[in-house]
Amino acid sequence: MKNQQVIIDSLPKGKLTAANYRLAEADVAEPGAGEVLVKTIAFAITAGTRAGLQGSASYAGAPQTGIVMNGTGVGTVIKSNDGSFGAGDSVVGPTGWQAYSIHKAKALTKIPTAHQPVDYLGPLGVNGLTAYFGLLEVGQPKAGETVMVSAAAGSVGHIVGQIAKIKGCRVVGVCGDDAKANVLTSDLGFDVAVNYKDANYRQSLKDATPNGVDVYFDNTGGMILGSALFRMNVGGRIACCGVVSQYDTDSPEPGPKGVPGLLVNKRITMRGFLVFDYAAHYAEAREEIAGWLKSGQLKALTDEVKGLAAAPGAFVDLLAGGNLGTRIVRLDG
Amino acid sequence: MKNQQVIIDSLPKGKLTAANYRLAEADVAEPGAGEVLVKTIAFAITAGTRAGLQGSASYAGAPQTGIVMNGTGVGTVIKSNDGSFGAGDSVVGPTGWQAYSIHKAKALTKIPTAHQPVDYLGPLGVNGLTAYFGLLEVGQPKAGETVMVSAAAGSVGHIVGQIAKIKGCRVVGVCGDDAKANVLTSDLGFDVAVNYKDANYRQSLKDATPNGVDVYFDNTGGMILGSALFRMNVGGRIACCGVVSQYDTDSPEPGPKGVPGLLVNKRITMRGFLVFDYAAHYAEAREEIAGWLKSGQLKALTDEVKGLAAAPGAFVDLLAGGNLGTRIVRLDG
Repeated sequence: MKNQQVIIDSLPKGKLTAANYRLAEADVAEPGAGEVLVKTIAFAITAGTRAGLQGSASYAGAPQTGIVMNGTGVGTVIKSNDGSFGAGDSVVGPTGWQAYSIHKAKALTKIPTAHQPVDYLGPLGVNGLTAYFGLLEVGQPKAGETVMVSAAAGSVGHIVGQIAKIKGCRVVGVCGDDAKANVLTSDLGFDVAVNYKDANYRQSLKDATPNGVDVYFDNTGGMILGSALFRMNVGGRIACCGVVSQYDTDSPEPGPKGVPGLLVNKRITMRGFLVFDYAAHYAEAREEIAGWLKSGQLKALTDEVKGLAAAPGAFVDLLAGGNLGTRIVRLDG
Repeated sequence: MKNQQVIIDSLPKGKLTAANYRLAEADVAEPGAGEVLVKTIAFAITAGTRAGLQGSASYAGAPQTGIVMNGTGVGTVIKSNDGSFGAGDSVVGPTGWQAYSIHKAKALTKIPTAHQPVDYLGPLGVNGLTAYFGLLEVGQPKAGETVMVSAAAGSVGHIVGQIAKIKGCRVVGVCGDDAKANVLTSDLGFDVAVNYKDANYRQSLKDATPNGVDVYFDNTGGMILGSALFRMNVGGRIACCGVVSQYDTDSPEPGPKGVPGLLVNKRITMRGFLVFDYAAHYAEAREEIAGWLKSGQLKALTDEVKGLAAAPGAFVDLLAGGNLGTRIVRLDG
């Protein structure tokens, strides 16, 4: 049995290109004691993994070449040497960009048969949980408040905005494309969506937030974070989730003006978080999110690509803002 | 009866100079109904008031010329048209840089006869309360943790470090002068003090914080904030109190690198605060601080200057780091 893999061939200098990756074939090994062999159904491409290719070590570890590209995937158990999994189970875990992977049982989570496996890459997976905990626990929005979210049409952002609507907030999304902006307001219930690439972005944001911003969910850092700081209300909260504006480069910009001056003047709390810190509460969160999906209050946008060979290009395109919702690479046909 | 005043004659372009001020003489008016006439004993010069002279409006309001320079002072009531004050009472309030001032009664706080009035410009005044609430409420230090404070020999910083020691923390002060550093460690009990002007500052800070930094009390912003971000531990707290590195200029720098990337990776909370938000708890805080002063656990450093004419130069010098502790201008001889 042969495994197809996408290998990190070289670390990007400047912007990432598809040439930083190569396709490879390898034998599929036998799972050892307590291990599980998984055949990938699909994996998600997320901007945050770009940080793992940057010069300095991030929470994802120091960058490395010659290894399979990392990523969260869903798959089917082929063979299990652990009592908690059996052949045919659907699972989610750190499959990476490859057709088969072997895991310690504790690295995998079983997906209940009631759910579609790919939902565990979107609203019921890391992206949905990040939106849920980042907005509700870090942002602490109250009904009637204004919530602003950047990369609003992205895998996390489009869920953040919808949860904020469920909680009774006014929701302003920032994205880089008018077509995306239209989806956010027409299909997902955002009150306003503004395009940060417009020349009059700052004025549009001001018009979109007549009562200021109480909670800003930051997926981008950079200029959009800077614009949010000027719109924040006294006592506002900024949930720092990601820094996509600074990933695809080897010379990240300095922080925005107004840090820390505006934090002081407006008594703003800026708090970084990682979803893994909330692992003890995933089950309740998934239950609530699944309920919203079922009732139609929450819609998951998925942006599908087919086949391993398409993954590097799809990642490059995602970093340029090409995705609408969660970008998933399907290997199941 | 004549009043001597320091007037803001022009707004600074670039760095503040004494020529931005002029001395003036005016008649002392009669206090109206509910008003109190106060003769200034002394006032404090604090870096934060420099922000009020910058181009954009801060919490201190938009900059303005032709008015008396603002500042907190202590004084003696000369005449009172309000039942809560009587001639001879010592009070603290927004006297500004002048010999006499008239206030609505509610703008003044009576100083108990048990205390020295000038202590209400230092440890029992806004500076001490800022240190107290910023460290304890925003920073939330626990015994055994490492607390770092910038402008550590300043009016707020030298109190922050001592309160952190009282709470059982390891305390690292950052200042810009070896003589100040020596006072912090020899006289005030700081564990280490490092000089940010040294060429090897970053390495010295690293050596001074072998277990990282759990709480950083930021009085400066800029490069020192940037250096702190790299030393913060997971779950660290940054209390944003002031931005003295960016006040004395009309072209403030961008924020430090690592905002928001390091906040995410290390789940850091950065929170701006103003002491006025804690006004409901001033009384308890003053009681606790007074206890520490009495027991000798807390020493207040005061840096005195005599006479109104010296105030502008003393402010310019303070912005260049010339003060050790709270800089006070005495008008009482």
